[in-house]
Amino acid sequence: MNEELLRVVLVAPRNPLNIGAAARAMSNFGFSTLRLVNPYDVAFREARSAVRAAYVLAAAEEYPSIAEAVADCTLVVGTTAGGKRELQQPLRRMEYGARLIRRRLASGPVALLFGSEKFGLSNEDMAHCHWLMRAPTREVHDSMNLGQAVAVCLYELVRDPGAAVEKPERRKRAPAATIEGLTELLLEVLERSGYVHERVEASSEMKVRRLVRRLDLSAHDADIWLGILRQIRWKVAGG
Amino acid sequence: MNEELLRVVLVAPRNPLNIGAAARAMSNFGFSTLRLVNPYDVAFREARSAVRAAYVLAAAEEYPSIAEAVADCTLVVGTTAGGKRELQQPLRRMEYGARLIRRRLASGPVALLFGSEKFGLSNEDMAHCHWLMRAPTREVHDSMNLGQAVAVCLYELVRDPGAAVEKPERRKRAPAATIEGLTELLLEVLERSGYVHERVEASSEMKVRRLVRRLDLSAHDADIWLGILRQIRWKVAGG
Repeated sequence: MNEELLRVVLVAPRNPLNIGAAARAMSNFGFSTLRLVNPYDVAFREARSAVRAAYVLAAAEEYPSIAEAVADCTLVVGTTAGGKRELQQPLRRMEYGARLIRRRLASGPVALLFGSEKFGLSNEDMAHCHWLMRAPTREVHDSMNLGQAVAVCLYELVRDPGAAVEKPERRKRAPAATIEGLTELLLEVLERSGYVHERVEASSEMKVRRLVRRLDLSAHDADIWLGILRQIRWKVAGG
Repeated sequence: MNEELLRVVLVAPRNPLNIGAAARAMSNFGFSTLRLVNPYDVAFREARSAVRAAYVLAAAEEYPSIAEAVADCTLVVGTTAGGKRELQQPLRRMEYGARLIRRRLASGPVALLFGSEKFGLSNEDMAHCHWLMRAPTREVHDSMNLGQAVAVCLYELVRDPGAAVEKPERRKRAPAATIEGLTELLLEVLERSGYVHERVEASSEMKVRRLVRRLDLSAHDADIWLGILRQIRWKVAGG
């Protein structure tokens, strides 16, 4: 996917905060081309919530019509809550639509359209789109905040399915010898403190052994527990 | 996954707009338990951007500490931009972390913590967490807007991996007979209008036939094109 080729197009946005939020999400997820069609307030360049995304806003371009804003794009996708209106174009779930967009971004510019806060995209706006995409929102409250809709769409574009199945590196686990040393120490403390009888029964010993293993301690944490138990042993031995 | 069991915990949020945005995203994606730890401004109940999410805000509870806000949870997950700080706990990508949370939500309450707009979660806050989760943001600008971070996390929780691979129902395609009828009509029009010779060559005919098939028309659109071509034929025939 070539992030440079995505054009985020806000159609008639009314709230500078949302324009700023869209720019911020773009910066978070590595997209940079923002286009505005008839923004309600040109004060968008001062949008407050665009922390560290000023470069996106500074480079944002205004267009008088959708046709002009998407002129260079080989794919035009509209976003919609989907729900009430009868739609004239194919409506795709974001999970699937994003895959198609990613694929297309390998070869040419793609426009992703977001409608105004109040009305979304009109039927006239949607007629410029090849197809429509929606987030899996609840039917009873399907309309998302503009800044959040942009963030969720862009996240879906950059999310890595591989990251969902591969476990990240885990902390280094403690070796069995350390865990067994810890078990012995704990048994001694339990004995000295009267939690178990002086001559620990075999069944209790096994229970404690399994108890310690269930902690699944990292090498680092096992060392800390060893230190704690040594101190306790010293104390209960009447140190 | 039992959505009822998720507790969205905002730690020391300062901006009512963000609290409202978090509530709205919760309503969009079907979550309802919002908890606030030491919110800066108790005016959050009037948060403007919480369109149709008033019920989430009305039910939101305030707590004086993280410990109290997460007391009933069997898993506590903190969100972080990840980047700069040295973290003391396992850090998981959202794609993977959300899977673990979904699984755990089948059996018990899970807390998902978001830090304040300015500082995120402190090391002290994070010590209450079993592990941490981050969105795949760019290293140079990894810190997300609070409302957008909540939206992206909740989206990842409800997104359906199945929806990414399964193609949604397509429009009903036109049957071959209709497409062939259309091809014949187009050939006739091309002939009458002089685009091809009166006696169309076999190779041209094949080219046109393939051209029409590449349109992959729906039954509905094929009918429209048939009407258009009939009208054009009538005109070019000197109607």
